[in-house]
Amino acid sequence: MCQLLGMSSKAPSNIAFSFEGFHRRGGSTGEHADGWGIAFFEEHTWRIFLDSQPSAVSRLARFVCDHPIKSRNVIAHIRKATQGEVHLANTHPFRRELWGQEWIFAHNGNLVTPPDCEGLRFQPVGTCDSEKAFCWLLSQIAQVFPQAPTENELAALLKQLAAHLTQSGSFNFLLGWCDLLFAHCSTELWYLIRKAPFSEAHLADADLSIDFSKVNTPDDCMAIIATQPLTRNENWHPFLPGELRIFRNGLPLSLPA
Amino acid sequence: MCQLLGMSSKAPSNIAFSFEGFHRRGGSTGEHADGWGIAFFEEHTWRIFLDSQPSAVSRLARFVCDHPIKSRNVIAHIRKATQGEVHLANTHPFRRELWGQEWIFAHNGNLVTPPDCEGLRFQPVGTCDSEKAFCWLLSQIAQVFPQAPTENELAALLKQLAAHLTQSGSFNFLLGWCDLLFAHCSTELWYLIRKAPFSEAHLADADLSIDFSKVNTPDDCMAIIATQPLTRNENWHPFLPGELRIFRNGLPLSLPA
Repeated sequence: MCQLLGMSSKAPSNIAFSFEGFHRRGGSTGEHADGWGIAFFEEHTWRIFLDSQPSAVSRLARFVCDHPIKSRNVIAHIRKATQGEVHLANTHPFRRELWGQEWIFAHNGNLVTPPDCEGLRFQPVGTCDSEKAFCWLLSQIAQVFPQAPTENELAALLKQLAAHLTQSGSFNFLLGWCDLLFAHCSTELWYLIRKAPFSEAHLADADLSIDFSKVNTPDDCMAIIATQPLTRNENWHPFLPGELRIFRNGLPLSLPA
Repeated sequence: MCQLLGMSSKAPSNIAFSFEGFHRRGGSTGEHADGWGIAFFEEHTWRIFLDSQPSAVSRLARFVCDHPIKSRNVIAHIRKATQGEVHLANTHPFRRELWGQEWIFAHNGNLVTPPDCEGLRFQPVGTCDSEKAFCWLLSQIAQVFPQAPTENELAALLKQLAAHLTQSGSFNFLLGWCDLLFAHCSTELWYLIRKAPFSEAHLADADLSIDFSKVNTPDDCMAIIATQPLTRNENWHPFLPGELRIFRNGLPLSLPA
């Protein structure tokens, strides 16, 4: 299985600390050695880095750690291949354009019977279940909404579609659309909110600490979403199975019942 | 105006020598300082690096030069903004998926009246004329061909569509699709074929030479396509205005009249 990392932040923020621990799970502290990727939202578009090398030894991952990029939305993924060979085409996050807007998707889980995308508007380039699920999701969204809906309309549809796909296996995912980050849990997903008063955090995967009160202003606020907690001494909240949350500006939005 | 660089090669090959000279035109030996991008074909998908920084000073461009990637098809672009602000969303090459295959597009020129993409299948994320032209082209292709056509069928349509867009301004472009590289000239484009017997080449933009007989085998063959010749002592051929060429495995294909 794979691992997910997402960030939603009020102000453009640097995810280097979280990514430093996370990318070590790709072949060093974890077994997720079949590629990795990270996407940074930069108003209207996303900057994506992908590599089919293990993230723990990837020179590109080192470049991303050493040249941190500030962003309000980030989606990262490290892969442990279940379906589809180790190949750039099977490396998350995936990207498509709909309504002149970019969509970014990363999946943790395994869909035993992936959806059939033949004849759909969006079709997979690679061979893994995750890209098929993304193409199927986005094709359904495009069919229901000829134009961009509200976030609540989209969330209602997404929840239905995710429930349908979850019948085929585990389907935890992060989906980026404009300034929103959708996070869906079927088996395991955690989040935490960092806001004032900031304190020191210690990475679970490396002997590294950071005092967030020194790098943030009192106004800052960010949500970190991950397959497993990345730090030892912060207040991580588990998602419930079947739960979909939307994050904007570092906070979860309230969804209508 | 911008500058284009393309490569089609029989064997996966390193474009570092050509890119070394080319990327200096982005703010050092040239005025094309409004972003750059490069896409490498890796069987089924493309690896893309984009930056809105001038390529001559971009740390990512330095990374690409220092960690050369072997590929059979490469499309690179350095931007001098004519329409659309300096922004990642306006940085070439652009990418879309059609029929489960990736399409990569870069443009040199200026379309005074860009095509209207409203309601089309593919819509621009940014604001520049080039992405609008790409979305319009690909939407027409998707409408005419519900499934992938032959390369000759595609070339015939592409020639018509390019002629139509050329009425609005200059429209030199490179288009990557699977293992094919389409190159269209409206005002200026050059190509050369490198094959045995290989000799030494000297970059026009830097005091740098390479002896291709030492880095290639006699079987190797590659085409380099560029807005302006990149070397001083090789046999560059100009495209004719209105000419569309398709390259595969380092050679131009013969097109039906």
